[in-house]
Amino acid sequence: MQTQAVLDHIEATLDTARERWFSYLRIPSVSAQPAHAADCNAAAAWVRDQLASMGFDAALHATPGHPIVLGHHPGPGQHAPHLLFYGHYDVQPAEPLELWASPPFEPVLTEGPHGPRVVARGAVDDKGQVMMWLEALRAWHAVHGTLPVRVTALVEGEEEVSSPNLEPFLTAHRDQLRADVAVISDTGMWDIDTPAITTRLRGIAYVELVVTAAQRDLHSGLFGGSALNPINLLTRILGDLVDAEGRVQLPGFYDGVAELPSALASEWAGLGFDEAAFLGGIGLSAPSGERGRPGLERLWARPTADVNGIWGGYQGPGSKTVIAAEAGAKVSFRLVPGQDPAAVVESFRAFVNTRLPTDARATIETHGTAPGIEIASHSRFIQAGRDVLADEYGRPAVLIGSGGSIPVVESMRRLLGMDSLLMGFGLDDDQVHSPNEKFEWRCFHKGLRSHARLLGKLAGH
Amino acid sequence: MQTQAVLDHIEATLDTARERWFSYLRIPSVSAQPAHAADCNAAAAWVRDQLASMGFDAALHATPGHPIVLGHHPGPGQHAPHLLFYGHYDVQPAEPLELWASPPFEPVLTEGPHGPRVVARGAVDDKGQVMMWLEALRAWHAVHGTLPVRVTALVEGEEEVSSPNLEPFLTAHRDQLRADVAVISDTGMWDIDTPAITTRLRGIAYVELVVTAAQRDLHSGLFGGSALNPINLLTRILGDLVDAEGRVQLPGFYDGVAELPSALASEWAGLGFDEAAFLGGIGLSAPSGERGRPGLERLWARPTADVNGIWGGYQGPGSKTVIAAEAGAKVSFRLVPGQDPAAVVESFRAFVNTRLPTDARATIETHGTAPGIEIASHSRFIQAGRDVLADEYGRPAVLIGSGGSIPVVESMRRLLGMDSLLMGFGLDDDQVHSPNEKFEWRCFHKGLRSHARLLGKLAGH
Repeated sequence: MQTQAVLDHIEATLDTARERWFSYLRIPSVSAQPAHAADCNAAAAWVRDQLASMGFDAALHATPGHPIVLGHHPGPGQHAPHLLFYGHYDVQPAEPLELWASPPFEPVLTEGPHGPRVVARGAVDDKGQVMMWLEALRAWHAVHGTLPVRVTALVEGEEEVSSPNLEPFLTAHRDQLRADVAVISDTGMWDIDTPAITTRLRGIAYVELVVTAAQRDLHSGLFGGSALNPINLLTRILGDLVDAEGRVQLPGFYDGVAELPSALASEWAGLGFDEAAFLGGIGLSAPSGERGRPGLERLWARPTADVNGIWGGYQGPGSKTVIAAEAGAKVSFRLVPGQDPAAVVESFRAFVNTRLPTDARATIETHGTAPGIEIASHSRFIQAGRDVLADEYGRPAVLIGSGGSIPVVESMRRLLGMDSLLMGFGLDDDQVHSPNEKFEWRCFHKGLRSHARLLGKLAGH
Repeated sequence: MQTQAVLDHIEATLDTARERWFSYLRIPSVSAQPAHAADCNAAAAWVRDQLASMGFDAALHATPGHPIVLGHHPGPGQHAPHLLFYGHYDVQPAEPLELWASPPFEPVLTEGPHGPRVVARGAVDDKGQVMMWLEALRAWHAVHGTLPVRVTALVEGEEEVSSPNLEPFLTAHRDQLRADVAVISDTGMWDIDTPAITTRLRGIAYVELVVTAAQRDLHSGLFGGSALNPINLLTRILGDLVDAEGRVQLPGFYDGVAELPSALASEWAGLGFDEAAFLGGIGLSAPSGERGRPGLERLWARPTADVNGIWGGYQGPGSKTVIAAEAGAKVSFRLVPGQDPAAVVESFRAFVNTRLPTDARATIETHGTAPGIEIASHSRFIQAGRDVLADEYGRPAVLIGSGGSIPVVESMRRLLGMDSLLMGFGLDDDQVHSPNEKFEWRCFHKGLRSHARLLGKLAGH
């Protein structure tokens, strides 16, 4: 009954919810671009004000980068369950601007195959996903004058730049942050009709390799045949990284990688993943990766090695006959539970060093590591999530994985001893991090209702 | 006697020769940069005026790019030998400017270990080398009122941008250009005390390879393990290009590559090349290239494969988890006589295509080809060159090779049926194409005298 009143209120006030969401999307809080530092502050203050308006004790906390918003609401008191909602107010750069059909920070409702959708930078990642739980909290507060559970809200502004200041903040505010579970809305559904909870995330080890040889660039005519070429060398090293079967060749790379539990393997098989359609959407027809593994397993539960960037020598028009003094590459390893990111980095270092001839030098810098995550699917929070999603959608919620990393999940587990409930409402075609990012209105609407249901469910209503 | 008077005149007028040279160096005739188009015209006009001042019928010829200077001097008449002097008035871009000790287009005389040197862009390549024969012609004309041989002067302005308009010009002006030999001063000495004539040049096949897969950049978390990564693929292809023994792996690559003639091998062995010192100068200690071959053979008479540039994905600071839609590289093969550049390009194309998995596409663009060149060392022109160099330096001139390409040599042979005498005075440390390009005053001085001697020698004086 309490929940139904909240859902009714949500329906009656959808227009104002959308207006609030749009005003949030208009703040160009691009964390990577120093010119937008004031906008990041404005977005943080906007979130703080939202929380304060529904009774949170909310404040901005300065960091060496963009501020963190932290707020507490006591709900019905000490015996109620305690939820930590996490999200981020920063967004990716909007460039290239010319590829946007409408200005990235002027949200618009357009019509798509699934009905209306909101197009803007941050529409889904993560402003839209955060707005769902903010509006769910607002509706509970509006209808009942308080929240049904204790709530801590943590909204950072540097997720898109690898959250350099989040872990120190978690450590310093450990006592204020401990809750029964972290609720994170930054993941996706299986499809627009099938709600999902994510219980597996891949980790990452991201390294930058620079190989150098001679002191300066050389003329390839005058020195070719005698002087070591760092680009040739780099291609030899990286060309060895993955074999013809798609297996990563770092020694020990697969140590600790377990086969997928059979129950989860069955659940995933039951999803009927159409990899041909998945790849067809991006112009590909055949899967890459490890031979002989199902597609979802390759995407969610098997590690990879991808070169994300490479450079060296002359990249301009026409020709230049140069042997470059250095060449570099960015390489990321997607990791699964059981792999130690630090060991992977060390194995890569050894892999490179054993391939260096005389005079070649290699530097390897780490740009971030996170282990793979597996969340126990039988916890009461996961079960509550499945239940409310089934209530809202009229069909079972599925347990899925994600090939990406959400490092905060691992940070909260390690630093705060807290597991996460990853209940998100994005779709694969949302153009996250790309031009024309969008969030389906139907996803937003039902996601908001699902969050409202979750609050009621966990309160025992 | 006639020659000695010319040499005396050269000594008496060295200061004015240097002033003319400096005024030429002050023209920033950078052919690659459209902003310097007027400067290229000015340099061409400057050369034309020099030729006209010593009795040449000289004119600028417009091309789709920068003009070509062509001039004729009848010398003593139809029965005299006919020399075609070739050079170029354009220079490489001077960037990066901050690495120059003095402004690149304000020539200065500085003191080095070999005495004074001229520092400027173009000091040696090719303005300094051209000034030597221009001044030798001027001295002959000043002393004797005419030239001792017939001379055609051909000075182009696009050598540093691969001479796109030279071959059509050679073809269109074939009848005006035919001479007994082309004299080209764009090569080097063995060392500052040892003059040299170059009789072998490597050719080149320069290609650009672009590999594409998906229609757009992808998130490596969401797609890694399923989507083909063009950078990974590119490194696999290029990593296969040269084996651990330094042998290029294109099928048929070594077809037609002959062992060095034993006489030339002996002459090169006698040079006592110190490869450790050669490499030490650029911070290397061990040779790369084909195992088991002498250093000079690897540099001058063996083919190579060097990746001159590579790019793809994210090259900025920090990390970006992207699977790029495309990756590319510039690859050049240095070729030797007996190799067909077109066949090498086709073999590379096949080498790439056999390594493309489903969905990968490769485009290969050719940025220029030239076969390797071998000039018969017993011709009367080569002998005359050796003789005058021995007279000037008091020691034998050596026959050397060059690892680089001078495509005009092959063009003149093919289109005009004319061989070249490559008598140049550069040194390995002249910083050609680099900041602080220099030409040793001693090299210029003795080179100018050698050119004056050559004119006399070929006239039979």
